[in-house]
Amino acid sequence: MDLCSMDMEQDSAVDRMMEPRSIAIVGASSDARKRGYQIVESLVRNGYPHPIYPINPKGGAILGIPVLSSIDELPLELDLAVIARPADQVIPILEACCRRRVAGAVILASGFKESGPDGARRQEALQSFLATHDIRVIGPNTSGIINFNHGADLVGLKQQCRIGPISAVTQSGNMLLSLLADIEHHRTPGLDAYAGLGNQADVDVAELILAFSRRASTKAIAVHAEGLHDGRALIATAAEVSRGCPIVLVRGGRSEAGRHTALSHTGSVSGSDRVATGLLGQAGIIQVERVDELAVVAGALSSLPLPKAGKGVAIVSDGGGHATLAADSLTAAGLRLATLSEQARQALHRYLGATAAVSNPIDVASAGDASPRLFAQCIELLQSEPDVGVILVVGLLGGYHLRFDPEDEVQENAACLDIGRTAAAGKFPVVVHSCYEHRRPAAHQHLREHGIPVLGSIEHAVSCVQALVRRSHWLATAAQRTDAQALGRYARPTGQRTASVLSEPEARASLAAAGVDTGPWLFAENAAQARAHVAALGRPCAFKIVADGISHKSDVGGVRLNVGEDLAETAWTGMVEAVRRAHPDSAIRGVIVTPMIDAGTELLIGVTVDPGFGPMIAFGAGGVTIEALQDIAFRALPLTELEAKEMILETRIAKILAGYRRLPSIDMDTLARFIVDIGASSLRMENLADLEFNPVILNQSGLHIADVRLISAP
Amino acid sequence: MDLCSMDMEQDSAVDRMMEPRSIAIVGASSDARKRGYQIVESLVRNGYPHPIYPINPKGGAILGIPVLSSIDELPLELDLAVIARPADQVIPILEACCRRRVAGAVILASGFKESGPDGARRQEALQSFLATHDIRVIGPNTSGIINFNHGADLVGLKQQCRIGPISAVTQSGNMLLSLLADIEHHRTPGLDAYAGLGNQADVDVAELILAFSRRASTKAIAVHAEGLHDGRALIATAAEVSRGCPIVLVRGGRSEAGRHTALSHTGSVSGSDRVATGLLGQAGIIQVERVDELAVVAGALSSLPLPKAGKGVAIVSDGGGHATLAADSLTAAGLRLATLSEQARQALHRYLGATAAVSNPIDVASAGDASPRLFAQCIELLQSEPDVGVILVVGLLGGYHLRFDPEDEVQENAACLDIGRTAAAGKFPVVVHSCYEHRRPAAHQHLREHGIPVLGSIEHAVSCVQALVRRSHWLATAAQRTDAQALGRYARPTGQRTASVLSEPEARASLAAAGVDTGPWLFAENAAQARAHVAALGRPCAFKIVADGISHKSDVGGVRLNVGEDLAETAWTGMVEAVRRAHPDSAIRGVIVTPMIDAGTELLIGVTVDPGFGPMIAFGAGGVTIEALQDIAFRALPLTELEAKEMILETRIAKILAGYRRLPSIDMDTLARFIVDIGASSLRMENLADLEFNPVILNQSGLHIADVRLISAP
Repeated sequence: MDLCSMDMEQDSAVDRMMEPRSIAIVGASSDARKRGYQIVESLVRNGYPHPIYPINPKGGAILGIPVLSSIDELPLELDLAVIARPADQVIPILEACCRRRVAGAVILASGFKESGPDGARRQEALQSFLATHDIRVIGPNTSGIINFNHGADLVGLKQQCRIGPISAVTQSGNMLLSLLADIEHHRTPGLDAYAGLGNQADVDVAELILAFSRRASTKAIAVHAEGLHDGRALIATAAEVSRGCPIVLVRGGRSEAGRHTALSHTGSVSGSDRVATGLLGQAGIIQVERVDELAVVAGALSSLPLPKAGKGVAIVSDGGGHATLAADSLTAAGLRLATLSEQARQALHRYLGATAAVSNPIDVASAGDASPRLFAQCIELLQSEPDVGVILVVGLLGGYHLRFDPEDEVQENAACLDIGRTAAAGKFPVVVHSCYEHRRPAAHQHLREHGIPVLGSIEHAVSCVQALVRRSHWLATAAQRTDAQALGRYARPTGQRTASVLSEPEARASLAAAGVDTGPWLFAENAAQARAHVAALGRPCAFKIVADGISHKSDVGGVRLNVGEDLAETAWTGMVEAVRRAHPDSAIRGVIVTPMIDAGTELLIGVTVDPGFGPMIAFGAGGVTIEALQDIAFRALPLTELEAKEMILETRIAKILAGYRRLPSIDMDTLARFIVDIGASSLRMENLADLEFNPVILNQSGLHIADVRLISAP
Repeated sequence: MDLCSMDMEQDSAVDRMMEPRSIAIVGASSDARKRGYQIVESLVRNGYPHPIYPINPKGGAILGIPVLSSIDELPLELDLAVIARPADQVIPILEACCRRRVAGAVILASGFKESGPDGARRQEALQSFLATHDIRVIGPNTSGIINFNHGADLVGLKQQCRIGPISAVTQSGNMLLSLLADIEHHRTPGLDAYAGLGNQADVDVAELILAFSRRASTKAIAVHAEGLHDGRALIATAAEVSRGCPIVLVRGGRSEAGRHTALSHTGSVSGSDRVATGLLGQAGIIQVERVDELAVVAGALSSLPLPKAGKGVAIVSDGGGHATLAADSLTAAGLRLATLSEQARQALHRYLGATAAVSNPIDVASAGDASPRLFAQCIELLQSEPDVGVILVVGLLGGYHLRFDPEDEVQENAACLDIGRTAAAGKFPVVVHSCYEHRRPAAHQHLREHGIPVLGSIEHAVSCVQALVRRSHWLATAAQRTDAQALGRYARPTGQRTASVLSEPEARASLAAAGVDTGPWLFAENAAQARAHVAALGRPCAFKIVADGISHKSDVGGVRLNVGEDLAETAWTGMVEAVRRAHPDSAIRGVIVTPMIDAGTELLIGVTVDPGFGPMIAFGAGGVTIEALQDIAFRALPLTELEAKEMILETRIAKILAGYRRLPSIDMDTLARFIVDIGASSLRMENLADLEFNPVILNQSGLHIADVRLISAP
């Protein structure tokens, strides 16, 4: 089964745009400097096999193709029109296209949302038009789209590009050029289809990813995105697409400085980097940290089988230097070296000699003059090791004849062919680093022809291994993850809403109604009642003032801790007086009384509704001190227990929750269920804007919600 | 002044080895497969201009060079002998070399410390021999040494290598191959001299770095190291060398898995990665995180002038996509974008148009068809901006004629020549990213000829900028840093020492004698005395048992907190009884009484004597909870106030120390002085093995040492 060609709604307008069987160029030109000429020229040069309809009121012909003088002369039901005319002419042109029932248009013009208030108004007008007309639009302000198989290049590239299994969508046209450069530079698999996002006035990144995933010729999708306008749509789509086809993403605008730049670039704002990292990963998106990894990692995911989940990595090296660096890099990437069986180690000793290092990393160097044949033998052996899921070769493979004896080339080529065939036959992932990669030996081509990436950088090779292992793990546990339908049930909020902070009794009551037990609490309206409440709760209590417009209670003397029954009335009086002094005009409603909670590890659990991603949950270290350290992870709601556990394990404080010296511990299942329940309850609360439990105290008797803050947006 | 050629002790034996005017090959061979042939062949092929003396009892000639039948036939005072004979023949050969007064020998043979107990004994014998003989040794188990200028290649490389300003020392021979590959692949500056570290039986990494720094032809030193056997020698040397010549380091064995591999590789053990990172950086070493950055960063430091300290980075881009990604990457690297003056922005608008993004990143794309001339103009302008220290160009520069019109090539070459000349004339650092780098356009050669690195990866370009800025900062503040002499005054410990934990009164008394005030404390030998001490201290106190052999006091009921005068005697009795029950045989000496310290932020300050680095100090988050999060930074002792501040700022907890919500704050100068004083006092304490103050509590009244643990090693 081809996992990447999902059998969904077929031949949507976007699918037709990406596989066009007819193209109109509105604004075609015979001036070689103009985009309207370059597109026609590029279609002709690349041998685009379907009808081309240049349109220009002047008529005539461009490169021998007759030019239509008006859109109205087009045949009906064209797949695609490219609009190479200025912004102010776009809507009338779209109207004309609609009359001819053109499926979709690519709008190249800038001058929309990215260019200030006038542009923003122009984009609003465009979107209003599209809401009532039956045509789909990519852009405006897009670099164009390309179908590499058919030579349908509407970007107008000058360079040849290797056709291959990667489809790409980028925010910036230059990122397409970077991708093409890296494909050529690192000799990774080539491109199938491309779309420039532009301002996403209609078709957005999620819809393009979905369209690409439907292409039988696409085996991986590479994405460069900046602002994630509708993050919820993206994660819902990705959660579905990722089940079949890998999505690799590099994001721009992750830093404050970068966001500022992205804003002036496309008019879109990215949210918090940490939020996006958590939620995109939850949806199965493989995020790369570096631009120079996008082609490399997408290429590896497109060409290699996945390792079996839960298994480790075997390193086969020539010499300890590269092996050590590879082991370091794998560890930093969160990967584990495989443990080899006793039989395997004995067999490796037979191949490599009694003194060889065979307990992973496996070092072939000690077997005298290293022979590429030894690599092939070791790799074949390791493929059947129970704990080995993927093999990373580091060193000189493919370059021995360059380093030592040129006569070894025949033998080396044969060995690499062997490695390629054995790996392909066993559907086993092998990644090769070679410091002779830049010399382009034929041996590397033998490896690549069998889907094995060969990389000149150890770190790039490790990034490929990391992506394979992560994806394997995600897929193996996909059934335990929130699916696209569940994610799609909750949209990001639209429009501006006013929000208000609930008083703590209101908040606790709302939470109780939604099924969240915030522990015992009582509301006192006078001193005597406060004293009675302390008696009823049976232990020293915390008093917190409930008064209109006062949110930082402790700053105004509105909090008393460890209040016993005997001092309850004194505490009441003292608090009320202090708050009156600080806020003479504030109406004091009373005091909330809660039993003191024994000290322990302070955690934070929060729920918020993100403008891009919709409802989401946060977990991390709590309390004032650690809160400043921002040790917090995020997931979209709803979330599953598995996802909650993964979220917990992303934080540094997770290290001490399973038991550390004399600190209280908790098992991960219990904590994960606690988080999942809070998430589920929050989704039942209408008008929830923001919920924060900080601290949630983990002590010897369990988890206790010590403080509650709830904001609603009715 | 050539900063890189330091006028120190001239023409040491190691200097002569690296610049040999005569070479003997002991174990020369006429068998082309043998190393003893390959070295002779390589010297002849590379045109080594000085005398070559092959030695083999069989005599004859190799490649026309007469072979001496014995070392005793050598002329006196040769610079270098290469020993290509097995391990068991090495010492007799060295003896013979000493008779001819050979300055130094390179020992290629393996079979020493790296290969088990027999090898370790062989290395000990070698080191004993060297202790009493006047010959220096590189190796054993080294890949060899190379002087690229003279064609003195004792490694026997087959490939040509670009000669250049980088000298390199690597633990692994394959790392030389990686370096050569990256130099060719990324077209960075080439090599001057090389040494393979091997087992460092005599000449070690520090001495090689020092020797390289003396070479007038060396402008940067690239290092690959695994175990840092004598880290103290390395940092003392580096602190001196870094003042003149940049040292760029990639380390292997940073992870547990990698250390295990390195151990079997070279028989050396790396210490904690965090310790090494802190101390090596303190000594001015530029550490790179990735193998694929070593050549790139060393190349940039060798060819570029440094930015003025404290200034920011200007990004000049073609389009927002690359600009945003570059801004993200710079931010992640801890760098700051420069603020441009109003005049500069106006001038940029004149060049680029009214709508151009000119407030850094500067985007030339909006100026219609981007012109390389615009880059040259913008760069010239930015060079005189007060806040711009370095310029990072990202995008297509050098490839416009490839992307757009081939006829633009002449103009583009001229523009790049302009950029190169202007930058060189102004001694201004410019780093260029271009996604056309792999196409090798002539324009890039114009840039490189003026010292400007051109890189195909944005991340590599940013790593160069980061290294330039870091080095500039380090040099500008070098006078405020611990110098080589001060670092060299304290050696790493040698031999095994037994250590013992001091009781808390002993520890506090020792510290007081050394000048560290640990705050008020009193020692009580009975209940009445304990009560009197509480009264004398004037506030509730902590009681801690002092008993032989009990270190986890609180686990056995040996700690009471908040003891008032009234309950002092009861507390005493309860504690003593609890400890007696738990440890009936332990002699109870008494109780240490200290006043309770108000709660606050818990910090950790520790001093230890590292087996490799010698005395060093740690600072970070303290207390049990945060200690688990390992938020700790390290510096060698002695340290300066500046270094203490930099250490503080490496921790996450530093973020809250300057004031965060209602938490106590402290100014950095005060905290740094507190740390410096503890460091200085520790160095005055004889036999100090380990000192830990955890927690040091920062509260509203200042810093308080709450707990003391001292281990001495007499």
